[in-house]
Amino acid sequence: MSTASELSTVRHASGGATDALRRSNLATVLGLVHREGALSRSDLTRLTGLNRSTVGDLVGELAAHGLVAVDEAPAGGVEGVRAPRGRPSPLVRVSDRVAAVAVNPEVDAVIIGLVGLGGRVLKRIRVETASARSVAETVTLASAGIAGMLAGETEIRVAGIGVAVPGQVRLSDGMVREATHFGWVDEPLARMLGDATGLRVWAANAAVLGLRAESAFGAGRGIDDLVYMIGGASGIGGGGISGGRLLTGASGYAGEFGHTFVRSDGRACSCGARGCLEAEVTQAELLAAVDLDSARAAELGDRLAATDDPAARSVVARQYEALRVATRSAVNVFNPSVVVLGGFLAALYRGAQAHGAPDLLGEVIHSSRDGVVVSEALLGTDQMLIGAAELVFAELIADPARALAA
Amino acid sequence: MSTASELSTVRHASGGATDALRRSNLATVLGLVHREGALSRSDLTRLTGLNRSTVGDLVGELAAHGLVAVDEAPAGGVEGVRAPRGRPSPLVRVSDRVAAVAVNPEVDAVIIGLVGLGGRVLKRIRVETASARSVAETVTLASAGIAGMLAGETEIRVAGIGVAVPGQVRLSDGMVREATHFGWVDEPLARMLGDATGLRVWAANAAVLGLRAESAFGAGRGIDDLVYMIGGASGIGGGGISGGRLLTGASGYAGEFGHTFVRSDGRACSCGARGCLEAEVTQAELLAAVDLDSARAAELGDRLAATDDPAARSVVARQYEALRVATRSAVNVFNPSVVVLGGFLAALYRGAQAHGAPDLLGEVIHSSRDGVVVSEALLGTDQMLIGAAELVFAELIADPARALAA
Repeated sequence: MSTASELSTVRHASGGATDALRRSNLATVLGLVHREGALSRSDLTRLTGLNRSTVGDLVGELAAHGLVAVDEAPAGGVEGVRAPRGRPSPLVRVSDRVAAVAVNPEVDAVIIGLVGLGGRVLKRIRVETASARSVAETVTLASAGIAGMLAGETEIRVAGIGVAVPGQVRLSDGMVREATHFGWVDEPLARMLGDATGLRVWAANAAVLGLRAESAFGAGRGIDDLVYMIGGASGIGGGGISGGRLLTGASGYAGEFGHTFVRSDGRACSCGARGCLEAEVTQAELLAAVDLDSARAAELGDRLAATDDPAARSVVARQYEALRVATRSAVNVFNPSVVVLGGFLAALYRGAQAHGAPDLLGEVIHSSRDGVVVSEALLGTDQMLIGAAELVFAELIADPARALAA
Repeated sequence: MSTASELSTVRHASGGATDALRRSNLATVLGLVHREGALSRSDLTRLTGLNRSTVGDLVGELAAHGLVAVDEAPAGGVEGVRAPRGRPSPLVRVSDRVAAVAVNPEVDAVIIGLVGLGGRVLKRIRVETASARSVAETVTLASAGIAGMLAGETEIRVAGIGVAVPGQVRLSDGMVREATHFGWVDEPLARMLGDATGLRVWAANAAVLGLRAESAFGAGRGIDDLVYMIGGASGIGGGGISGGRLLTGASGYAGEFGHTFVRSDGRACSCGARGCLEAEVTQAELLAAVDLDSARAAELGDRLAATDDPAARSVVARQYEALRVATRSAVNVFNPSVVVLGGFLAALYRGAQAHGAPDLLGEVIHSSRDGVVVSEALLGTDQMLIGAAELVFAELIADPARALAA
């Protein structure tokens, strides 16, 4: 009986309002398949609350334009999903021919990736660089790497470029307001990279993009109240999700956990103050403590956990205490259900735990401590690229009809 | 022409869906008059987007049940508001006969108020107490004070009791999870006070209620990104508004800025940790520095600003530095447009500024510092009572129809 009324809605689907409704429904379906992976048409019907024939039409439209692929007769029992009458329900997946380019300038390298719709990293290169460089040099390097990466990729449609910047970025136009580790102030990075490549470019703070990636595909999936801190060669960033919404702040610069105060008479920070988390807790010092160079940062957690060297253990203990202080302030203020640690902060946490360090949340106020889970980021070094690609895919998903028309 | 279609909507107002719509419209109108003060019927028409006759019906219904009063013919030119055709538009105000009782237990007193709809404090008493007392003693004291306050008030309808507790409170049932300054753990304060008075009781964290009051009627009016810190005899609390929404956290305990880390090797805090803001910055120490007792805390700001005593100035300088560190961490993480300081923190700020102390935001990262306003709370000692009453009025406003039926 609900089917009858819904069909009558579909029959009226012709005017301006219903066109907006159709675009919104296309976005809902594409967004679900993007985030959830392959879904049966029955799943989509259940998750969207739309009727079967509407979902079928929407999927058909997305498929006809190459945004999703439909597996009409999945092998019996794939994921156990079947339509009510026993016929197999077709599986809908994102197309593997739609991708975004992702760029993540770090202090010692430019990392470039090709990320498929659905958040899968298809290709990844790391171009080592001198530690200080201009925006123009970064754009030139990135453009060369992108050209190389896309050469011969005739099958893939690139929806745009997303850039993850270790600094404050104005979302509206991708203007880098400040990236202290590069010495950049008010640099129009997105416009310059757009001019150089001919592609549309979006840019945002790298840590916030890491959080978006973990929230969509990693340790933060489905978590409404989340504190996220990530460390890299360029320092420590972070972000928060509160009540299911990304914390942005008045100007989009919220989440700078790297500039939480952790030590009186502490080291000078690049921000001009003293005792900030990112001045006290650095990847370079941890790498040096176990004789690793930055290209092998992925081994850091295991090496820190395994070391018996008292000097290295002392560095871990001191840095962990600073992380513990920052986490305590953050959890007391945000009352999250999950704390996600990414990059070298996850390595530091793992190392300290292996040496019998105290609970990261041990000094949080009692009421906010209960049940809080500390989790390592799940997407590893890919999270910045996946997050940067999310900037591009968010635009694509918000209005697939426009992409279809293009 | 829009009037015609809207009239047709009104003509259909009979079924269940339109009853829900009517209740929602009553809530919108009552909420506007509650927050904005007296509004003309033309203002209400413009602010709600409803048509004149619908607004007239809604106002009539609210007035008939004693929730608003209508001044049919305001003295010529009152606030200059006139209907399009030159006839004066009736002014709608909240009734002065609907009120909430507000209770704020502090460590050294129980403060009880009667707060009218619209957030006006009608009566206020302060019952001095011993510094440690049980929940049962607090309920007995509060009940006595409430009985005295309501004696002879035959004209006023009391919609319920709101309690502002300096501690963590579960909103759903007013259970005090933890109030370290009283030594309370898992105390069913709201239920006990309800049993004792026969009135409905809601309870919440005092600082969060202070924030609600300032956000609705004070320094935070219309601000979407706000950090609020307030100090009282029981310590320091706070809250945040981000993107226009109150930060609650996973369990409702967000905003504990009093437990932000500000000093290495600092004092032991009641929470068990060291160096928390509320361990380093206390009203008692500031009062003692200028020889005031707690009953004269309202004079603290002026006294701190005026003092020439080097010892007192040194206390101010040390406490201000701790407040500055906590504010820096908070602004770096939240990127607010306004920081509101309440209670003795406002006094400390005023005192330090008078002695030529550095900018409270001087060490905030550059991008988040621009344009941030530091403001003293505007509602003074009434903010807890007004906030506690908001708990009651929020229920009343959310469904006036139910209140009307009662």
